[in-house]
Amino acid sequence: MAIKIAVDAMGGDNAPYEIVKGAVEAAEEFGCEIILVGQQEAIKSELDKYKFNPGQITIENATEVISTEESPTIAIRKKKDSSIVVGLNLVKDGKASAFVSAGSTGAVLTGATFIIGRIKGIERPALGTCIPTIKGKFAFMIDSGANVDCKPNYLFQFAKMASVYVKYVMNVENPTVGLLNIGVEKEKGNALTKEVYGLLEQSNLNFTGNIEARDITYGAADIVVCDGFDGNIALKVAEGLAGVMLKVIKSEITQGFYKLAAFVLIKKFRNVKKRFDSEEVGGAPFLGLKALVVKAHGSSKAKGIKNAIKQCKIFVENDIVKKIEEQL
Amino acid sequence: MAIKIAVDAMGGDNAPYEIVKGAVEAAEEFGCEIILVGQQEAIKSELDKYKFNPGQITIENATEVISTEESPTIAIRKKKDSSIVVGLNLVKDGKASAFVSAGSTGAVLTGATFIIGRIKGIERPALGTCIPTIKGKFAFMIDSGANVDCKPNYLFQFAKMASVYVKYVMNVENPTVGLLNIGVEKEKGNALTKEVYGLLEQSNLNFTGNIEARDITYGAADIVVCDGFDGNIALKVAEGLAGVMLKVIKSEITQGFYKLAAFVLIKKFRNVKKRFDSEEVGGAPFLGLKALVVKAHGSSKAKGIKNAIKQCKIFVENDIVKKIEEQL
Repeated sequence: MAIKIAVDAMGGDNAPYEIVKGAVEAAEEFGCEIILVGQQEAIKSELDKYKFNPGQITIENATEVISTEESPTIAIRKKKDSSIVVGLNLVKDGKASAFVSAGSTGAVLTGATFIIGRIKGIERPALGTCIPTIKGKFAFMIDSGANVDCKPNYLFQFAKMASVYVKYVMNVENPTVGLLNIGVEKEKGNALTKEVYGLLEQSNLNFTGNIEARDITYGAADIVVCDGFDGNIALKVAEGLAGVMLKVIKSEITQGFYKLAAFVLIKKFRNVKKRFDSEEVGGAPFLGLKALVVKAHGSSKAKGIKNAIKQCKIFVENDIVKKIEEQL
Repeated sequence: MAIKIAVDAMGGDNAPYEIVKGAVEAAEEFGCEIILVGQQEAIKSELDKYKFNPGQITIENATEVISTEESPTIAIRKKKDSSIVVGLNLVKDGKASAFVSAGSTGAVLTGATFIIGRIKGIERPALGTCIPTIKGKFAFMIDSGANVDCKPNYLFQFAKMASVYVKYVMNVENPTVGLLNIGVEKEKGNALTKEVYGLLEQSNLNFTGNIEARDITYGAADIVVCDGFDGNIALKVAEGLAGVMLKVIKSEITQGFYKLAAFVLIKKFRNVKKRFDSEEVGGAPFLGLKALVVKAHGSSKAKGIKNAIKQCKIFVENDIVKKIEEQL
């Protein structure tokens, strides 16, 4: 039986057209079944643009949409017929094996925890984000924003979940685990990292010690473990700086005499952007639940959605939930 | 009477030559007196290269040097005749008004707190770092690494000290204060930021609410207040990413056909670098002590040292210590 994946057709800046396009491509390429969740008419008129196997793509109607401006907790409670709530319920009821959404991060995480529920023994589900590195591979940062006040055991569990995920879904044999810290020495850090260091050191994980933030993009560890507050700060600094730097460089090279050279180089800049393209990996997996929920970036295009669906397929095929239970 | 500033001639990657050069330039340009602290012979042979007013530059011999590899606490305790300890003692004994060092950050901060001592009422001195923004001005991040486990009142005091410093030393009238957080809404954040938000909101500071990490480089606030752990993570992510991005861009544009264009653009890249040049502002002030200590970057050249000395001069002329006391 084909793997069934529920996809939020209404979430993100480019919904529903890029979401539907990505789903159609994924169905053809990966042979899985997809349930597009959202406003039936809107989805149908997008689907009509493509040729696809109607046995592979179905629509689950959901009349409401949760916006990123709404309070996640209230939205999940009140909007029972939103694409996020309906999609998560499909997973809960066993009608789908995983859920992909490019919608409100808060609503997706809150809803997922509430509706799908945690794996027994997991204290806090956590969000993993792939960060491009200069080595060409990605670093997997967990938690990248779901949990702001963490206890040592939460981070220890993040490391365990990530080790399973990165091994099977990202195909890295025996992935290294680095603890995000302000220095590499064992005694460095705050009260939290000092305790986590001890737990990781005594575990069966491939712990390589503390990692400084500047070494993430150099590929110093396959997995970077941190508190969700710090993970969020790290990701957003990178986002802001990357934007500013490209802007400054572009403005410098489009002045006067250099305009022509700049014109020639625009294509090259696109190559650079591609190397940092997060859509290559799909989305951020929310780990620790009884099924996989992938939070795709709000600006996701068809490619990002397609790759998020691929992530789900690999996750389900490898029975990652069971492997995480065994790792605990 | 001219202002006297003690300068660690042995600290940093380019000591003593760039340090001595910067000191000579500062003496001439700003008319202050400088005490170069360190190994007498080494300093003297550097000084011999320049013409300067011997009434303005003197040497204080210190035979030992603290390296960045040493434990700060042990080094400060054991190496009584190191340039850092001798320099700090000059300030403590009233023979100099401020101290500049490009040496071990840990040793400078530990030594400064221990030898010079805190302003009465200040719970934790904090390190401020200037971050370039796209607006051309700098954002002042405090604490950028001195205190890893912070209580709400520490951050509140950081904001007060920074407001005085940025106003008088960086010349920003009524500087805005942003609280580094994972969202702009008041209710966002961890236990620490939620409490600090309340304190800042009720203060007489120009508090503009939470600021997300990605908005720092866009110049969203003059002062960015945070825990030293998060500040350090933010700075080091930026450092790592900037390095990686320039590397990737350079490698892209030096391939094949684009080599010639790249050659033309090298000069332009230097302009970009200049806009992000931290030496323009000198160093990181360590605020909350009875006198100013400036931690210059380990890679500082003469210009960075010169500007750090200028910082000290403005600090002393404006009697910032007294103004911080009044702000408490």
